[in-house]
Amino acid sequence: MTAGFTAAQLIEKHRPTLDQALDAIRSRAYWSPHPEHPKAYGEGGSLSAAEGQAAFEALRGTRLDLGQPGTDGWTGDEVSPYGVELGVQYPHPDIEVLLPAMRAGMAAWRDAGPEARAAVCVEILARISARTHEFAHAVMHTSGQAFMMAFQAGGPHAQDRGLEAVAYAYAEQTRTPQSADWSKPQGKRDPLELRKAFTAVPRGIALMVGCNTFPTWNGYPGLFASLATGNAVLVKPHPRAVLPLALTVQVAREVLTEAGFDPNLVALAAERDGEGLAKTLATRPEIRVIDYTGSTAFGDWLESNARQAQVYTEKAGVNTVIIDSTDDYKGMLGNLAFSLSLYSGQMCTTPQNLLIPREGITTDAGPKSYDEVVTDIAAAVQGLLGDDARANALLGAIVNPQVGERIDKASELGEVALASRRVDNPDFPGATVRTPVIVKQDGARKQWDSADADAAYLTECFGPVSFAVAMDSTQDAVALLRRTVQDKGAMTVGAYTTSAEVERLIEEACLEECAQLSLNLTGGVYVNQTAAFSDFHGSGGNPAANAALCDGAFVANRFRMVEVRRPM
Amino acid sequence: MTAGFTAAQLIEKHRPTLDQALDAIRSRAYWSPHPEHPKAYGEGGSLSAAEGQAAFEALRGTRLDLGQPGTDGWTGDEVSPYGVELGVQYPHPDIEVLLPAMRAGMAAWRDAGPEARAAVCVEILARISARTHEFAHAVMHTSGQAFMMAFQAGGPHAQDRGLEAVAYAYAEQTRTPQSADWSKPQGKRDPLELRKAFTAVPRGIALMVGCNTFPTWNGYPGLFASLATGNAVLVKPHPRAVLPLALTVQVAREVLTEAGFDPNLVALAAERDGEGLAKTLATRPEIRVIDYTGSTAFGDWLESNARQAQVYTEKAGVNTVIIDSTDDYKGMLGNLAFSLSLYSGQMCTTPQNLLIPREGITTDAGPKSYDEVVTDIAAAVQGLLGDDARANALLGAIVNPQVGERIDKASELGEVALASRRVDNPDFPGATVRTPVIVKQDGARKQWDSADADAAYLTECFGPVSFAVAMDSTQDAVALLRRTVQDKGAMTVGAYTTSAEVERLIEEACLEECAQLSLNLTGGVYVNQTAAFSDFHGSGGNPAANAALCDGAFVANRFRMVEVRRPM
Repeated sequence: MTAGFTAAQLIEKHRPTLDQALDAIRSRAYWSPHPEHPKAYGEGGSLSAAEGQAAFEALRGTRLDLGQPGTDGWTGDEVSPYGVELGVQYPHPDIEVLLPAMRAGMAAWRDAGPEARAAVCVEILARISARTHEFAHAVMHTSGQAFMMAFQAGGPHAQDRGLEAVAYAYAEQTRTPQSADWSKPQGKRDPLELRKAFTAVPRGIALMVGCNTFPTWNGYPGLFASLATGNAVLVKPHPRAVLPLALTVQVAREVLTEAGFDPNLVALAAERDGEGLAKTLATRPEIRVIDYTGSTAFGDWLESNARQAQVYTEKAGVNTVIIDSTDDYKGMLGNLAFSLSLYSGQMCTTPQNLLIPREGITTDAGPKSYDEVVTDIAAAVQGLLGDDARANALLGAIVNPQVGERIDKASELGEVALASRRVDNPDFPGATVRTPVIVKQDGARKQWDSADADAAYLTECFGPVSFAVAMDSTQDAVALLRRTVQDKGAMTVGAYTTSAEVERLIEEACLEECAQLSLNLTGGVYVNQTAAFSDFHGSGGNPAANAALCDGAFVANRFRMVEVRRPM
Repeated sequence: MTAGFTAAQLIEKHRPTLDQALDAIRSRAYWSPHPEHPKAYGEGGSLSAAEGQAAFEALRGTRLDLGQPGTDGWTGDEVSPYGVELGVQYPHPDIEVLLPAMRAGMAAWRDAGPEARAAVCVEILARISARTHEFAHAVMHTSGQAFMMAFQAGGPHAQDRGLEAVAYAYAEQTRTPQSADWSKPQGKRDPLELRKAFTAVPRGIALMVGCNTFPTWNGYPGLFASLATGNAVLVKPHPRAVLPLALTVQVAREVLTEAGFDPNLVALAAERDGEGLAKTLATRPEIRVIDYTGSTAFGDWLESNARQAQVYTEKAGVNTVIIDSTDDYKGMLGNLAFSLSLYSGQMCTTPQNLLIPREGITTDAGPKSYDEVVTDIAAAVQGLLGDDARANALLGAIVNPQVGERIDKASELGEVALASRRVDNPDFPGATVRTPVIVKQDGARKQWDSADADAAYLTECFGPVSFAVAMDSTQDAVALLRRTVQDKGAMTVGAYTTSAEVERLIEEACLEECAQLSLNLTGGVYVNQTAAFSDFHGSGGNPAANAALCDGAFVANRFRMVEVRRPM
């Protein structure tokens, strides 16, 4: 579109999508407007696979000029976990110039109202959706995800999470009417009468601090929630995963301009090596909302120090699966093997601790000892990843050397039930591709049930390292689950049981400790995956995250409602 | 009721009221189920004026045994601002016993679900409503409000705010269905299918820290928002305003018991003199939500230190009225006089700074110089309060000696345009009753437009002290308004103008600085009064308060949504 368009036109175009999203967050039934299959793209203005790849290749070695004010040079040294140098240069911000410029358009953005803002956001998402194949490569070559995962999680699933945030933001802002006539009876006297106008006003400039592993999926909810509630949004990507968010900013600025708004409502803040820009920005008085995904240390720092802002964090956690019993042993093994392998376990939702009774479990294939269960899980992983092509397609690349070091050191933590192997990637010889390692652990109470317990499984070991913990009982497993969630938090909890009583115990633990539970997954849904519009990602109620994607609390405090009342 | 009742019966009884409240917060039209007129009580189980007074008198000198566990003695030394010793003794808590006891009933309260919790809360409010005459005396003799104000603000208006919070809490918890069936198409393969259950789970124990001046009105929103979202609530009243909240706890415990829940879901924490119990409680790990109304110093302390909790604060602010022009000079004078006089200006919403152009204003009664406007406001206050009986009925009593000292010292701050006078109260000779003082001030930019400016009107002077500030222009008045809201916050802003351009300037300032604006009030609605279900009290977006009464943000983070998903 070259001639621009009005907000009213955008509303007409996107209102049906917004309405469907609003329905979906109410019913929480399955819904998505963003196709998952790569072949669904290439028609109707969207880039085909070849076009997307070409667009990505054309970006390499270029300077991505976003036309931002306050650019004091260029920065960027991304090297793909697949070994490819991206060579893209991004504007480095002079924040003394950029931040005031970002505020300039906020009054008009506020006055446009929730529906126009939602429509602009949906248009941004639609343009991103059309470039999904291009984004897929950008996500793949920054996160190290395998192509199909980068395509789906970085494309349609991320767009879904963005749209979900737009829907919540719209719903929240429109719970109060724009105006109300208020008439209070006064007995025989005339009633008191006032006309009241209600305006959703933004907090200020929102800062979205992106992460390395899921730049779009974890970034879009905060970005779109803040923008849709009237804030300007400054995007500070992880220095190793700039491109997907820089492209996002580019699209947002393009749509804002065409719709007659100030493009500086969305800007990029790419940092120089070791600059610590997030810390500088986070305590600026102009920054009133912060979204962050990453380490517990920096998340805690933000919560403690960015006191002028509303801070939404997703940090580390320790995810548990309790294996008590199953009536589909094979399905359980396959499901767990996939969960442990996907993206080399580099998901905040990947299970880490597999709690298995020392005395074994009952299954539809007969009783299985602890050793048998562990051996069978290891074998399932080996089977899943035996073929190198399939292994590459599932595992992707190791995102940074620290993950590789953790894999190498895992054998020091206990008896190795499944050793990690290196997989060659013929397309990208520079990629580090590793299969998961499983380490046996003793789950006796003395190992974990005291303040100074230091069992390896009590802390997060990010990457494809999991622990098969031999528990004295399922009751102990539930107690350890509680301890872990209380102390370290959890994004996910899984459990396998055929006992109604055990199920009740685990459910009660998850309700009390505030953790999201997946029970008896044996098919094509995995504990580490959540679907926008239906599943909550995180609970916001345990130390792994102070917010959930996405609910009312995620959007309600990004704006405030200002009332002007006058006599009628 | 002696035989108890089921939650289902309560739902049937109160669902219509809940539905009307839900309608009201959506439409923001006038609504209240709680009659404002004292004569409306005395039938249908509610206490008449005489019965209410007798009930209050019967409480004096007694020990209010709430039947709480963990009581390690008795405390209480309330003396009414009217000079009456209440002599009521309250249980002093052993929190090591009380806090665990409060947790015991939480799982059942959670499992009851949002509708049953709402119905129990509405029943509590209905029982309180029936005792409104008794509560009126309790509020009067702790806050110092005059009887009619204690009756209305402490009774029906407080009950309205409580019910509003219940409605928001119910709406927020039921935005997500209790369960959902999710079916994701997989092309030619079978769809992926999951059944999902969603449960609103509480944060933990909520602490409500009450204030001296509006124990019920400012206390009920947080109390009922927390209780309705599944939390247990510990009520820590101001040591000089225990009785109204102790009675509230008594009613809540009675209703919880009769409905089959644990009464310890609501408990009182009355403190010993100088004990600082709020500080101790606020950082306990069991306390996960805190509501507070009071000084900026302690509010800021809570926000900084009670990091384990969601903290909702209403603190001090500096409220401004800009007087630019009016087409109802007499109406404006009368309206302002009432606002300055009501409860001796001891409301967080009372105007403090009256910004008036030095060169005067235009009115329907001809041009008026700054001096004339100030003199006429002073005369309007004198006229309103000239009769002692009427003065007593409007002013109430000075709540504490510090307020009296501020009145006495006001003359040191500038030329006194209206001196405070002492009013005798024949019914309560011990009461300190004072009329407002108005002090003239210079509003030249040099007085306020720099970092080290120290004009008296830049800080809060709580009580019946207001400043008539001579401004060089209305533009300067708007600039000073912005400066004041940014630095000190404001619960209310008022303005009088006949100019569309000035109105726009002031509206824009309030939208940008996030302050609630009342324009051209000349009749029976006052800037310091807000109506539940329609007006927001505070914005939550300036330093005076980090939350508004009542909106989605006030309730959304008091609970979390836990999902359990399993194959269908």
